[in-house]
Amino acid sequence: MNIVLVLNLAGLVLIFTSLFMLVPFTTSFFIHGEDVYALGLSFVITFFAGVLLYFLTKSQKKIELKHRDGYAVVTISWLLMSFFGSFPYMLSGACLSFTDAYFESIAGFTTTGSSILNNLETLPAGILLWRSLTQWIGGMGIIVFSLAILPMLGAGGMQLFKAEVPEIGVEKLRPRIIDMAKSLWYIYAGLTAVLALLLTFAGMDLFDAVCHAFTTMATGGFSTKSASIAYYQSGTIDFIITLFMFLAGINFSLHFYALRGRFSRYTKSSEFRFYCSVVFIAITVITLNTMQSGQSSLADALRYASFQAVSIVTTTGYATADYEMWPVLSQMLLLCLMFFGGMVGSTGGGMKQVRIMLMFKQAYRELYHLIHPRALTALKLDDKNVPKETLGGIWGYLFLFILISVIATLLMTALGIDIITSASTVISSMANVGPALGDAGPTENYAALPAAGKWVLAFCMLIGRLEIYTVILLFMPIFWRK
Amino acid sequence: MNIVLVLNLAGLVLIFTSLFMLVPFTTSFFIHGEDVYALGLSFVITFFAGVLLYFLTKSQKKIELKHRDGYAVVTISWLLMSFFGSFPYMLSGACLSFTDAYFESIAGFTTTGSSILNNLETLPAGILLWRSLTQWIGGMGIIVFSLAILPMLGAGGMQLFKAEVPEIGVEKLRPRIIDMAKSLWYIYAGLTAVLALLLTFAGMDLFDAVCHAFTTMATGGFSTKSASIAYYQSGTIDFIITLFMFLAGINFSLHFYALRGRFSRYTKSSEFRFYCSVVFIAITVITLNTMQSGQSSLADALRYASFQAVSIVTTTGYATADYEMWPVLSQMLLLCLMFFGGMVGSTGGGMKQVRIMLMFKQAYRELYHLIHPRALTALKLDDKNVPKETLGGIWGYLFLFILISVIATLLMTALGIDIITSASTVISSMANVGPALGDAGPTENYAALPAAGKWVLAFCMLIGRLEIYTVILLFMPIFWRK
Repeated sequence: MNIVLVLNLAGLVLIFTSLFMLVPFTTSFFIHGEDVYALGLSFVITFFAGVLLYFLTKSQKKIELKHRDGYAVVTISWLLMSFFGSFPYMLSGACLSFTDAYFESIAGFTTTGSSILNNLETLPAGILLWRSLTQWIGGMGIIVFSLAILPMLGAGGMQLFKAEVPEIGVEKLRPRIIDMAKSLWYIYAGLTAVLALLLTFAGMDLFDAVCHAFTTMATGGFSTKSASIAYYQSGTIDFIITLFMFLAGINFSLHFYALRGRFSRYTKSSEFRFYCSVVFIAITVITLNTMQSGQSSLADALRYASFQAVSIVTTTGYATADYEMWPVLSQMLLLCLMFFGGMVGSTGGGMKQVRIMLMFKQAYRELYHLIHPRALTALKLDDKNVPKETLGGIWGYLFLFILISVIATLLMTALGIDIITSASTVISSMANVGPALGDAGPTENYAALPAAGKWVLAFCMLIGRLEIYTVILLFMPIFWRK
Repeated sequence: MNIVLVLNLAGLVLIFTSLFMLVPFTTSFFIHGEDVYALGLSFVITFFAGVLLYFLTKSQKKIELKHRDGYAVVTISWLLMSFFGSFPYMLSGACLSFTDAYFESIAGFTTTGSSILNNLETLPAGILLWRSLTQWIGGMGIIVFSLAILPMLGAGGMQLFKAEVPEIGVEKLRPRIIDMAKSLWYIYAGLTAVLALLLTFAGMDLFDAVCHAFTTMATGGFSTKSASIAYYQSGTIDFIITLFMFLAGINFSLHFYALRGRFSRYTKSSEFRFYCSVVFIAITVITLNTMQSGQSSLADALRYASFQAVSIVTTTGYATADYEMWPVLSQMLLLCLMFFGGMVGSTGGGMKQVRIMLMFKQAYRELYHLIHPRALTALKLDDKNVPKETLGGIWGYLFLFILISVIATLLMTALGIDIITSASTVISSMANVGPALGDAGPTENYAALPAAGKWVLAFCMLIGRLEIYTVILLFMPIFWRK
């Protein structure tokens, strides 16, 4: 690994992150917020750390990025962003320990949205804005990571999507990433702006609308209200957010084509059709189940079921209902939805729809083979053959997802935390959802967990967000051998 | 599918099963048991049903068994054995509903050992003996199924073991199955007899010793005492049973070679080494964890931890301790152990050690490939290359295991059963363990579950015991198409 080049790029990422800190700083400056110093100081520290890192490592800049470097850049960038992103929380006194500040920060940058903050309403506006922005920055990072970096690295079966992304015709890794990032970020920023406008029209005040637009498009789920979206008690707002969470769960390159008039790319994508089916089935079952339990009318049941199902499947994690009051079936279904996550190339987490779809296909093919042992059947996705290496990558991904979840759950239970809370917080963190069940349900938060548990979950968020392989590799001796 | 031939063989299985009913009948006859009529009548019904089935379908006997027929014979045989095996429970009044009788019967024949019977001590001896025998018969069936039938059918990656089984030199399916069955059953029966003797020497009365020998070697777990093995409060008995559960979790063809003096076959088998490692790690962690929680001395902790870990990993399901009183980590670890199960070719359930070992290997290989994309590495097991089709079968198996567990858990929660009880009873049934967590822990039983839940779990036991594919295939339209 070329550690100098990796740190050089990480320095760039830090400078980029620090510039975003100017947004809450300026806001706080104009409204004379109490957090203006904390934000200003955080900017200065982060900016100079970034500049220092960048210039200290600048000499080697002409070397081309290799595979190993790619994995290292991504992991180290997310770790550094989260570290420096925790300064506003610490310096403003919003978080009293480094553990809490780091947890809140990494829950932002990984777009998870699990929080240790109580009484959000008492926090200064600048901090709340920074909190929402961390998710939005994380979302930008993920779009580039999943559509530009991962397909080239080929981890977890992602070589499949080399052809999916807009073609740019540049072969080298760095210019291609930058070009693609630009066009996809325009769409991301555009959708965010539209959503903020719509939320304002629907009655949210501008500040809250902007914050929620940031965290919706990032499928992050941080809210400015302790009661999350339930605070607004507005069917219109619920509907708008449900729609935009759904959009954020779609591959952004499909939006890219749609904006060029090629709307058929949506329906041609079998992953999109699978995603729609999963959402449709989940909404139907939860609606019927919550209605049947006599808690609400059809209209209400549909409204809360669709919001909550889309919120969980896209791994956003907003709440409009305390689903722990729902029948057990609905709760269990929400837990299952966490695994699905968004489409590849969306900001959503989880295992990704296409991976689960391909697992269904291969399982069916295995059954078919038992009946027709001599039949030659290749697995297809959108009329293209899926190479065996891709499938191998997906199965390896599934196994590592399960293995790490199990180990993390064992660690949580070793701290004396009950099984439901342990397992659900781990799954929620691995899938970057946010709320879980048990002691970390939609109406509680993660504050009461022991510090060691917070670090376990922080690690799960990182590993889940970066598609497992990216992070795991750094822990393997083969990675460091020549 | 050749339904006539399938029913013909199922008829033979029924006759075979009915003959076993004579054992508890004779016992009951000599001790003037109140259940003598119930057992006698059950024998008559089962025997004549078997004979009728056999002779009605006899004409087509010369046709050779095909793949599809193989799957159908196995599934239908287990269903019919369980159906007729429930007669003693119903006719003696031990079970008051057909659901309960069928549940108890299938929990026997699938060697699961989950029970709906309260106060075993009040049941007549004949019924208790029949209950233990159902597991022993199930174990015999499983040895043949996994070492003779599955490798030839090639389901779930099991073609791997074609070479593992003692070579007999006959090519046709039926004579080969019969020859192999004989040699392996001698070992099975021999170990059972030795165990019964040892238990008698250790102070158990002869009847209980025989019953427990049956259910230990089958890794079934039915006991003649409501308190299970904890009733005896004997370190010697605990030790003997731990040892024999461990032996029952080993591939019986390794015992076959060992009896011919080739003991090195044990240590040469990487699955055996993996199995030993899993057991060793589990015992160590649980011993330390239960000691640390201040509940017992090292000797006691080791005794209960090793009994319970081996009981769960081999999917026997006996209890000497109420592990729901143990720290959460130990409980969670036991839940994980259920997935591992015994070795292929043992009577143990679960996913089988070799499958999980190969998943670890493939996940590592995927990681290796990301670092060295051009390296050609084949997956090896005991120095032989593992074909890609085998791996595909294993991944398909894993996915179906998860998928069916999830669907079954959703069905259980739809009945209003809490998540811990739902998930743990489903996993315990799929893995053929027996006890679970929550309302079906080691000191409770399954009697209080709703009837629909019992049917869901009965189906899980069948599907788990028959390696999933065997049963699932029968539900697929392609199976029935020409």
